[in-house]
Amino acid sequence: MAGHTHHGYIENKDKVMARLRRIEGQVRGIQRMAEEEQYCIDILTQISATTKALQSVAIGLLDDHLSHCVADAVREGGDLADEKLTEASDAIARLVRS
Amino acid sequence: MAGHTHHGYIENKDKVMARLRRIEGQVRGIQRMAEEEQYCIDILTQISATTKALQSVAIGLLDDHLSHCVADAVREGGDLADEKLTEASDAIARLVRS
Amino acid sequence: MAGHTHHGYIENKDKVMARLRRIEGQVRGIQRMAEEEQYCIDILTQISATTKALQSVAIGLLDDHLSHCVADAVREGGDLADEKLTEASDAIARLVRS
Amino acid sequence: MAGHTHHGYIENKDKVMARLRRIEGQVRGIQRMAEEEQYCIDILTQISATTKALQSVAIGLLDDHLSHCVADAVREGGDLADEKLTEASDAIARLVRS
Repeated sequence: MAGHTHHGYIENKDKVMARLRRIEGQVRGIQRMAEEEQYCIDILTQISATTKALQSVAIGLLDDHLSHCVADAVREGGDLADEKLTEASDAIARLVRS
Repeated sequence: MAGHTHHGYIENKDKVMARLRRIEGQVRGIQRMAEEEQYCIDILTQISATTKALQSVAIGLLDDHLSHCVADAVREGGDLADEKLTEASDAIARLVRS
Repeated sequence: MAGHTHHGYIENKDKVMARLRRIEGQVRGIQRMAEEEQYCIDILTQISATTKALQSVAIGLLDDHLSHCVADAVREGGDLADEKLTEASDAIARLVRS
Repeated sequence: MAGHTHHGYIENKDKVMARLRRIEGQVRGIQRMAEEEQYCIDILTQISATTKALQSVAIGLLDDHLSHCVADAVREGGDLADEKLTEASDAIARLVRS
């Protein structure tokens, strides 16, 4: 349910892409550690770090989304505003619970 | 601090590797979504799913670690047992807080 | 930094208060279990349930906050809107990381 | 499924009880804030702090449980050891996912 062309994160797209590539590198690093049968605790440490990196990307995307897509819809008013607010709250709930 | 050659997860290594490759694919999928400037909420949904997948791998590794590395050290007794128990608790704390 | 009298959750105040009282009851239940030296795993199960209950209250409050305090500020525009959006994002980050 | 009289946390019982009473106080503080219709963000900040406090109690209990109940069962060996290890892993999974 987009209904909105200009997404907030696009202004920070390069930064988002760079962080996602780093996370891909972290996941490949974890694969290599498991392939080389490295120590479980060291692999777990890397998984915790990767989870935190993903969380940071999500928090940044959410911040951009609130201040662009949701704020624009609120200014527009009507059903679109309610939809965007509900949608944002559901995304926050998924993040908090993941 | 390994001091232990046979790690628990090695018996499930193929499964662990397959899950990590799937997670790599999820991260690349998120990159593609951002590259194509897809809707923020849809990207956030994929990030939540990827975080959960990482958590599942971590929980599996921890289960294997407890029932192999930690249990072996406990049977051996002495300082090694205490080290492994403390190390496992610290890894659990990092996971709970990530 | 309130600067806003009518908070979103006030329309659901009774529900919020009832849930918080239930959480207080859960915490007292955990105290009783520990006082009676009940089994660790059973206490841990109750702590996980109480954490989830707290999360649900937080997600509800955030939903109300976005659709009232933040939306009102966005409609008003100017610095207040930016402050409220940043403040909400910081609160979301704390929740995601707790 | 106790099957074990001396639980690890009992040696730190006073500390556990004190922390749980503090958490009860935090929850009552949140109730008061909502009763007085204080600002949503301030209430959310207190909920995040309370969630973290609960997590710390859980991590402490788990640490004690691993180094007492689980370690004793592992030394004893047989089915009891497997049961305790599985039970501990399930409790860790609930905590990580809460």
